[in-house]
Amino acid sequence: MENDIIFVGKKPIMSYVMAILTHLNSGNNQVIIKARGSTISAAVDISQVTMHKFMKDLKISNLEIGTEELSDKDGKKRNVSFISIEMKRQ
Amino acid sequence: MENDIIFVGKKPIMSYVMAILTHLNSGNNQVIIKARGSTISAAVDISQVTMHKFMKDLKISNLEIGTEELSDKDGKKRNVSFISIEMKRQ
Repeated sequence: MENDIIFVGKKPIMSYVMAILTHLNSGNNQVIIKARGSTISAAVDISQVTMHKFMKDLKISNLEIGTEELSDKDGKKRNVSFISIEMKRQ
Repeated sequence: MENDIIFVGKKPIMSYVMAILTHLNSGNNQVIIKARGSTISAAVDISQVTMHKFMKDLKISNLEIGTEELSDKDGKKRNVSFISIEMKRQ
């Protein structure tokens, strides 16, 4: 489960798509894409490209948005939005 | 229903939050935030700020992501990711 999570950062979208395909072609049945703040849009793109262009039997099994409290490097706390997209092979 | 949709563009987040609060304080029970492409992250922020800072009885009642086909100004078609966040007062 923990092992199924792909965190989205600043790399190009296709590198996350490739990571997901590798994960799902290595005996894993599901993947969870997690992203915070401005990378949320990229997370949605990554899910859509993976499902529609590469793995047609992949479906969204759970979708969540919410707020997490993060500490920045000065120790100040701030709220950041997140998205969590769980996808399973059918 | 159609009337309940707020489309997210390039304005500051708070202007959409205000539009939602006005909508919900004018006899409407629900609102749907819709966003495409890079404004998806802002849509999530808008939902979170509205729920957590301004209207604590507001809950997410439906959440959807997907792909839409759009035509650009040259008539070329391209696929764009979207998010749709439906929220209802409890």
